[in-house]
Amino acid sequence: MLSAELITALQDIFPPERFYSDPTDCYAYAYDNSRKIFPPDAVVFPLTSKEVQRTITLCNYHQVPLIPRGRGTGTAGGSLPEQGGIALSMERMLNIISVDPANRVIVTEPGVLNQSVQNAAKPHGFFWPPDPSSAAFSTVGGNIATGAGGPHAVKYGTTREHVLGLKAITGSGQLITTGCYTTKGVVGYDLTRLLIGSEGTLAVITEATLKLSALPSLIAGITAHFSHLSSCTTAIVNIMALSQLPSALEFLDARSLDLIRHHYPEMLPKESRAMLMIEVDGSHIDVPDSICAIIKACQNDGLISATRTDDIANLWKARKALSPLLREIAPKKINEDVVVPVNTLPQFLDNVTQLSTHYKINNVNFGHAGNGNIHVNLLINPDDPDEVSRAACCLDEIFNLVIKLRGTLSGEHGIGSEKRAFITKEIDFATLDLMKGIKKVFDPANILNPGKLFPQN
Amino acid sequence: MLSAELITALQDIFPPERFYSDPTDCYAYAYDNSRKIFPPDAVVFPLTSKEVQRTITLCNYHQVPLIPRGRGTGTAGGSLPEQGGIALSMERMLNIISVDPANRVIVTEPGVLNQSVQNAAKPHGFFWPPDPSSAAFSTVGGNIATGAGGPHAVKYGTTREHVLGLKAITGSGQLITTGCYTTKGVVGYDLTRLLIGSEGTLAVITEATLKLSALPSLIAGITAHFSHLSSCTTAIVNIMALSQLPSALEFLDARSLDLIRHHYPEMLPKESRAMLMIEVDGSHIDVPDSICAIIKACQNDGLISATRTDDIANLWKARKALSPLLREIAPKKINEDVVVPVNTLPQFLDNVTQLSTHYKINNVNFGHAGNGNIHVNLLINPDDPDEVSRAACCLDEIFNLVIKLRGTLSGEHGIGSEKRAFITKEIDFATLDLMKGIKKVFDPANILNPGKLFPQN
Repeated sequence: MLSAELITALQDIFPPERFYSDPTDCYAYAYDNSRKIFPPDAVVFPLTSKEVQRTITLCNYHQVPLIPRGRGTGTAGGSLPEQGGIALSMERMLNIISVDPANRVIVTEPGVLNQSVQNAAKPHGFFWPPDPSSAAFSTVGGNIATGAGGPHAVKYGTTREHVLGLKAITGSGQLITTGCYTTKGVVGYDLTRLLIGSEGTLAVITEATLKLSALPSLIAGITAHFSHLSSCTTAIVNIMALSQLPSALEFLDARSLDLIRHHYPEMLPKESRAMLMIEVDGSHIDVPDSICAIIKACQNDGLISATRTDDIANLWKARKALSPLLREIAPKKINEDVVVPVNTLPQFLDNVTQLSTHYKINNVNFGHAGNGNIHVNLLINPDDPDEVSRAACCLDEIFNLVIKLRGTLSGEHGIGSEKRAFITKEIDFATLDLMKGIKKVFDPANILNPGKLFPQN
Repeated sequence: MLSAELITALQDIFPPERFYSDPTDCYAYAYDNSRKIFPPDAVVFPLTSKEVQRTITLCNYHQVPLIPRGRGTGTAGGSLPEQGGIALSMERMLNIISVDPANRVIVTEPGVLNQSVQNAAKPHGFFWPPDPSSAAFSTVGGNIATGAGGPHAVKYGTTREHVLGLKAITGSGQLITTGCYTTKGVVGYDLTRLLIGSEGTLAVITEATLKLSALPSLIAGITAHFSHLSSCTTAIVNIMALSQLPSALEFLDARSLDLIRHHYPEMLPKESRAMLMIEVDGSHIDVPDSICAIIKACQNDGLISATRTDDIANLWKARKALSPLLREIAPKKINEDVVVPVNTLPQFLDNVTQLSTHYKINNVNFGHAGNGNIHVNLLINPDDPDEVSRAACCLDEIFNLVIKLRGTLSGEHGIGSEKRAFITKEIDFATLDLMKGIKKVFDPANILNPGKLFPQN
C-alpha cells in the first residue's frame, strides 16, 4: 500500500486520467504474457521525461518499487509488479520525434508501437529490423528493454544492432544520454547496449534513436517439407553454411505440424514430419540466385518438397496458425526460447524429444532455426501437480543440455522473473556479482523493477 | 619505481624472457601512434588468463598501474603508461583457439593479429568485418578494446556488431565470461559491448568469440572525381540515400589530392578538387546493379568522372599514398576522427575550411564519408608555439561544430589521453558520473589504465 503522502505527491504530477489507484483500473497492469498476476498499488502514465524523473525521485524517497512497462507483451514476467508498488506505463509517450531519412534515423518516445516505427519508415524506403511477433501491439521501449528479436534476426541481427542512442532516467533519478546520432561513435562506455536488454532494472528509457535499414526491393519465400527431423536439421546446417543468408529461417517440428493438420487438414503434405519456412530478401536480381542456392542446400534423402512462393503471407500461414492452437490446447504451456549453436540443432532436438518422452511431457518445438533459437514448448496442464513436477525436471534437463551445447537460455524473451532461477546455469558468480554492482550504480535504492533478472536469494 | 617485493613477485610469474625491467627494453612499450612517450617501469608478457589474473592481483595489492596494450597502434594514447607502472603486453597470447565455420565463429586470444583472423576465416569463405587500417599489425584485443572501425563499417558496422562474447579479467582480478557463443542471447546485462571500446579501463580481455560474415563473391569499385567540394558532398548524401549500401565510401578533399599530386603527378585528374573511392561488394549479379545506381547518384554539375574499376588495389592507391605523405610533411599532425550525420557533411567540411583559414592552419580532410566519419588533419609544426596555440583553438571550435551538428568526437580512435579534455563537450556530467561508477565496480583500486578516458580533475 502506498502512503497518503506519496499518493498526494503523485497526484501533484499526474492528473486523474493519468493516475490509477483503484484496484479495478490497476488490474490491467498486473500481468504480462507470462500469465502471472501481481497487481500494482498504482499506475501512472507519464507524458514526458521530466514526469518520469519526478516519479523516480519520489519512489526513491518513499522506497517504493517502480515497474516500467510498455504494453505488457513480454513472456518472461519482466513487467510484473511482484512486490507491488507503482506500474510506470510508458504507453502514452507515443510521439515520433523525428524521421530523418537522409541519415537513416528515427527518434521516438518509448511508447510508440513497433509497427508505428515501420509505418513511419516505409514511405522513405526504410524499415527498422527488430521484428518481435508482437510488433503490432508492443512498444519500442519494451523491445529495447528486452533486447527483443524475431525471425529476421538471422540476417539483420537483433535490437542491439539497430539502436544508436538513448535517453533514460536512471534508478537514482538522473537523466542520461547514451550513444550518438551517427552510425559510428566510440566516446565513453557503451551504455546504450548496457541498457538494451536490461529489463527496466537500470533505467527507464524515455527516448530512442533508431538506426534504419533500406527495405529490400524483393521478398520471396521457400516452403520445404521433410520426411524426418534429421533430414530437416541437416538442411538447416547446410543453408546456414551458404554465403547467401536467408532473411528468415523458421522451423516447425512434427508435433507442430500434427497440431496444425488436426485443425487445417489441407494445409500441409500428409507425410511431412518437419517443415522450414525460408524467406529471402534483396534485389530483384539477387533473390532468384539465393532461392536456387537455398533450395539446393535443402536437397537430401528426406526432402519431400522445396517450393518457391512469392506470396509471403502464404509462406507464414502455418506458423501463424500454430500459436493460437498451442494456447488453446495448453493455455499455461511453458514456452522457452533457448538458443544453441546451429550445428548442434540435430543433437539438441533429438535430445529434447528423448527428454520429453522420458518425462511424459507433450512437447512442441519450433522457431528461428537460422539463429539456433528454438521455442521449446512444454504443453502441461497446470492443475496436474505430477505433470507440473515432471515438466520442471524436464525443463531443468533441457536447460542443462542447452548449456552443455554452448547455447544460451534466452534468445529474445529475457530473464524477468520466469527464468531467474536458472541464470546461474549460464552466468558464473563473479560475472553475476559484477552485474549486481552495475545495478547498484544505476539504482542504489533498488527501486527499479526490483527482484527481476537476478536469482532470488 | 616498482618495489623489490613486487619485482620478485612478478619474476615468480614470468620467466626472464617475458619480464622486462631494463629501461632500454621497456622503451618500445612507452609509446603508441599518438607519438607521446611514457616509459613503463616494467613490461610483462602473459601467455595465459591465469597469468593476467595473478598480475592484476599483484597490482591491486601494490597499488601499481597496469596498462594493457596490444601492438600499440592506437592513436589516442590509450595504451600510454602515463603514470608509470607495468605495461601488460598481450601480444604473445596469440593462439586461435577454434575456427568453427559451421557456426560462423572464431575464438581467439587477444594478441592474435586482425589479419591472422582474416587468414583463418578466408579458407572457409568467411571474414571478420572490423578492418582498421592497421589490420596487418594490430591485435584483435586492441581492436575490441578501442571499438575500432574502418572503411567497411559503412556496410558491416563496427567491432561491437561482430563480437559474440568475451573472457576478461576485471580490474579487481575476477575472471568474467560475457555474452555467448550464439548469434542471439539476452541473458543478463550486455557486458560484452560494455567492454568493447572501454580502452582497457575496466578489464583485460583474454579471449574473444568473434562472429564471422560470408565473404562476398565479388568486389568492385568506383573512382569518382568532382570539380568542387559541394558537388562531392551532394553525391555522398545521394549515395547514402540509396538502398544499395556501398561496402566502403571514402573521401579525399582538395588538399589531400594536391599532396598526392605533388608526389605522383600522374595519379589524379588535374581538375579534381574532391574524390570518392567507392567499393561495392555482393554477388556477381548484384554488384553491377549497385555500381549503376551509385554512378547515377554521383551525377551532378560538378562530376568530372565516375569510373568503375575491378582492380581493388588500384581503387585504394590514392588513399594508401596519402597517409605517409601526411606524416612526412607534418610528423606531429593532429589527426582527428570526428563523425557528423551524413547530410551535414557539406556544412561541416565547409565550416572546417573556414575555421582552418581563420586560424591559418594547414588542414587536410579525408575519411569514411559513408559514416560521416572524417579524419580532420591539422598539419602543424610542434616547434612553433604560436601555430600550436592556433591549432588548439581551431580544434576546439571544430569539436564544438561537431557537437552542434549532432556528431561525435570519435568514430574509431577512442578517447585515451588525447581527447579526454574534450569528452565533456559530448557527454554530460550525470552520464559521465555513471561511467565512473561502472569503472569503480570493475576496478575499485583504479589500477587498470588509470587516468584514461575520463577528464582529468
